[in-house]
Order: sequence, then structure tokens, then C-alpha cells
Amino acid sequence: MLELISEHGCHGGSQRVYRHQSETIGLPMKFSVFLPPEVLRQWDGVSEPLRRYPALIYLAGLTCNEETFMTKAGAQRFAAARGLILIAPDTSPRGAGVEGESASWDFGVGAGFYVDATQEPWSKHWRMESYIVSELFGIVTTVLPADSHRVGIFGHSMGGHGALVLAQRHPGRFRSVSAFAPICAPLESPWGEKAFAGYLGAEPNAYETYDASALMSRQSRPPYPEGILVDQGLADKFLAEQLKPEAFQRACERVLQPLILRRHEGYDHGYFFITTFIEDHIHFHASILAGATRPLLTGGLHVRHDTGQPIHPSRH
Amino acid sequence: MLELISEHGCHGGSQRVYRHQSETIGLPMKFSVFLPPEVLRQWDGVSEPLRRYPALIYLAGLTCNEETFMTKAGAQRFAAARGLILIAPDTSPRGAGVEGESASWDFGVGAGFYVDATQEPWSKHWRMESYIVSELFGIVTTVLPADSHRVGIFGHSMGGHGALVLAQRHPGRFRSVSAFAPICAPLESPWGEKAFAGYLGAEPNAYETYDASALMSRQSRPPYPEGILVDQGLADKFLAEQLKPEAFQRACERVLQPLILRRHEGYDHGYFFITTFIEDHIHFHASILAGATRPLLTGGLHVRHDTGQPIHPSRH
Repeated sequence: MLELISEHGCHGGSQRVYRHQSETIGLPMKFSVFLPPEVLRQWDGVSEPLRRYPALIYLAGLTCNEETFMTKAGAQRFAAARGLILIAPDTSPRGAGVEGESASWDFGVGAGFYVDATQEPWSKHWRMESYIVSELFGIVTTVLPADSHRVGIFGHSMGGHGALVLAQRHPGRFRSVSAFAPICAPLESPWGEKAFAGYLGAEPNAYETYDASALMSRQSRPPYPEGILVDQGLADKFLAEQLKPEAFQRACERVLQPLILRRHEGYDHGYFFITTFIEDHIHFHASILAGATRPLLTGGLHVRHDTGQPIHPSRH
Repeated sequence: MLELISEHGCHGGSQRVYRHQSETIGLPMKFSVFLPPEVLRQWDGVSEPLRRYPALIYLAGLTCNEETFMTKAGAQRFAAARGLILIAPDTSPRGAGVEGESASWDFGVGAGFYVDATQEPWSKHWRMESYIVSELFGIVTTVLPADSHRVGIFGHSMGGHGALVLAQRHPGRFRSVSAFAPICAPLESPWGEKAFAGYLGAEPNAYETYDASALMSRQSRPPYPEGILVDQGLADKFLAEQLKPEAFQRACERVLQPLILRRHEGYDHGYFFITTFIEDHIHFHASILAGATRPLLTGGLHVRHDTGQPIHPSRH
């Protein structure tokens, strides 16, 4: 049951925030949606959609919420032109009442890291991976008119980590992937170490399954043969210590995964950087999703819950 | 003395916030600047500029500050392409410590209404008109590389009122003018009545000199023969009671002032509306400013301080 809590005209489409009681998280969650004009013309917002449209999920970074991207990135202009639905979830549960949940800006509230926590007291609500890939994915491809075979994922910083990791852990779920200044090797980053220790406990094996570079280096074939796009600013103060795109680059080279890694002089970690290159990301995803008209999976989505390891289903 | 307090790469240019001790306001004031790539290539940020560039001042609405427009409107993309400097001041003095200054969202802090207050206790610091047209204008056209003969002004809501009013009260200072959802007839709007009563006291004559429609209806000739652009959303909940574009339209018709007043179905009062139409506003100003290579004024800027009435200097 989706509750529409705000709606604004934007670039001929509709900019919305929905709230729902999340089964996965066990709390109300909010997410933003941009519906391009093409969708609005053909869908009344209530009935079963007659057509389904490509969609792109954006995962935001530390301290952000479901509004940040839609307010600051300026993506709607290009999504409207390409007929792409945009979806931006929140970055963590809110209102859980876990002691210390707001004590750090890089852990707890606003910092879900897109993992399913296994450690008390976080494991009850901090289940952002399952929330994104199952519950939210399900809502937008059933209640909302997104096409489950044409969903891309991207994100920024912690959300760039989320995009690169979820796209690898859930093969076939996402058809295209890109990132802005992602945390590429959380195993070697203070942010990642803190988050993984808190959410996953003392299990280094589990950590590796949430590290984009470690995951990529173990791929048996390139998971995204149409390429992965990553933009990184060279004036980003987090680049050397927290982000480490060179680790992801090496891993992609090892498994022959095509990577477009662009390093930009003079750009830092914020939304003025993102809004500068957002047009390219929208076109990158729209072009891949436009070609993805057939299902990629023979079966459903499979993740072994004992190890957290994805099982690669065969492709068409 | 300008203090650079932040700087971000954006669309090949530089997005900055400056702080300075304002003589007019008697307090520190901040403003945002976007310098397009063309300016950065030719100006080191310190020396006397060898060339000067067209500039566009944006006045924000109630509750906003110097960051709102630069963060949410997405104007930099188009300003970068057109070689236009963008400037966004704050909406009021801050830190004055006047009793009750933050008691209302539509009066006091964040609500300067771009007038020079004449009433105690506001008259000491709330002098936003003089701040914009003299001190800020002076800074950006001397210390920063804006060309004093090619400055446009625009704004949103309270800032749309500010743009339409300052552009009329100070003939020749601004070469082009436009607005998003401006308060067109503050004399007939609860926001305007409250602000004018508080800042200007019981002097209805003074009120009229700050009402865009009243000012326009008394023009002896069209003050902006190249036209004024106004965009208004029809789903704007403030439209009927507070904004009244029809009053400004009637006044423009009376004096044969060309007005492009566009009414947009489905758009409300916020920045999702502004970002939808910002491209048109930037191109509108850039085109007029590109043609404005000669001074418009024979003398300086004249306002009779006894009545607040502008004196129209002769034009070339």
C-alpha cells in the first residue's frame, strides 16, 4: 500500500514522494519517483499499467535521504527526454529507536550501506539490500509502471558502492550500472571498515561479498558486457583514503569487464560534481535499457543466504 | 574585502560562496557566485579583470538563503554555455539580534522583501534594496568581473517582486528582467501588507513605490522595451491570494510594456517548477545582455531618498 505524500510538476512529468510500511525494514520507508511525461500520458496512476517503462534506481550517499538526488542533481530534464522513470530510496531505516543510531554521521541513520545487517541491534531493521533489490524493486515493477527487465542502478559515494555491489550480487536484476565517486573498496576504507564491523560483525568473508572490487575480481566473466560508467572528481577530499577507484579498475581489467572510469580535474565530492555529469549517466543507462527488451534471467533472483554469495543464473 | 568561504567545480566553471562585512546592512552578508568556464580561463580571481562579462542576479523567495538557487535550480549548465556570471544574495540580514526577527517565516529573517526599511527596529539592518542595487552591484562589477552595463535581474516569489520592483526603481541599472511566480501586487497581498506595514510603517505612498504593478502603471514609457519574462504555475497554491500576475499584466498593457507571461498547467510554487523553465530564463537574459554593449545611463543611479521615488535618467 503506497501513500502519495507529495507531488510536483517537473519537466512535463511528475515528481513524487511515496511512503509505505516496509515489511523488510519493519518501519515506514519513503522513496522519491520521477515519472516522465510519456508515462503520465499513458498511466492514470491507479490502474494496472498497459505499458511498462525503463527505470533507474539511484542510491544516495551518507547523510542523504530520498529527496537529495531529486532536489540537487537535475536528472529529471534528461529522464523526461528519454522516457526513463527515476527512483530514489532513503539511505537507511528511520525511527527505529536503536540506541546510538544517530551518534555518527557515517553509521546508523542515513548510513545503511546497502547491506543486510547480521549483528544485533542492527539486524532487525537495517536490511537495506533486501529492501532495495526485493521489496522496492517489486513495488516499482508492479504497482508503479517500471519494466522489471529494464531497470538500471546507480549511486553516489556510499550509494555508488551500493550500486556496484548490488549489481554484482544480484545478476540479471539490474541491466545497467554506473556510479559517481563510489566507495570502490570498502575493505580498505575507514567508512567501510566501520560499517562492516558494525553491521556484519567479525566475519571478513562476509565483508568481501560486499566489496565491489573483491566481487569483480572473482567474476568468471564480465557481468556487464555493455560497460560500467564511473565518474570521479580529482579534487574529491575522500578520493585517496575512502574511494580507491584504482582497486575497482584493476579488478575490471582482470576479468575483462569494460569500465569507463573518468577522472575529472577540479571536481569534488558533492552535487555540483554530480549535476555536471548527470546528463551522461542518464544517456548511458537509457541507451542500454532501450536495447534490453528481453528478460535476462531464466529463473528468479537467487542469493544463498547462508554465505551471502550470489548464484549466477544462466543468461539467454 | 571578500572572503571566499567555499568553492566547487561545476559545469567547467566555479561555484562559490563569498562573505563580506556589509556597510549597508551593518552585518556580515554571504552571496553565491557561479563563474562560467570562459571567465575562469581569463581571470585569475585576484587581479583586475582584463575583460568583463554579463551577469545575472537572482533574488530568492521567503525562507531561502544564498545557496537555495544555486543548489536547486540547475542554472549553471546554461550559464556555463552562455558565458554568464550568476549571483545569488541572501534574502535578509542574519544575526542582527532584533527581537522577534525569527518569529515569522514571512517577516524578518529570510524575508527582507528587497526594501529599505524605514521603521524601527528594522531600519538599522533591513536595507536589502540598497544592499542589492548599490553595494552588491558595486562588488560584482568591480572586485568580480561582471560588466556594470550588462547586468540582468530575476527572482522567485518575494524575489520575483524584488526583481520587478528594483528593475523599475533603478532605471538603467539592470538591462534585463524576468521572474518566476512573482508577488506582482504586494499592496493586495497578505505577504506584502505584512511586510510593508512592518518595514515601511503607515505610509501607503511608500508602499506604492514598492509595488511592481503600481510602478509599471505609472511608467511614461515601457521601461524594458525588449520585454519582461514571467513564468507562473497554475497549480501554485499562492497564485490567487498572494501573486496576482493579472495586475502586472494589466499595468504592462496600459504602458505598452512587452510582457511574456506564461501560465503553466500542473506546476506549483517550488523549485521543481523553476528548474523546468530555468533554461528559458537564462537564454532570455543572455540574449538581451549580449546586445547590451553600450552604457544605458548618462549619469549615475538616482533615487530621491525623501520619497523613495526613482528619478528616470535620460537614455542614450
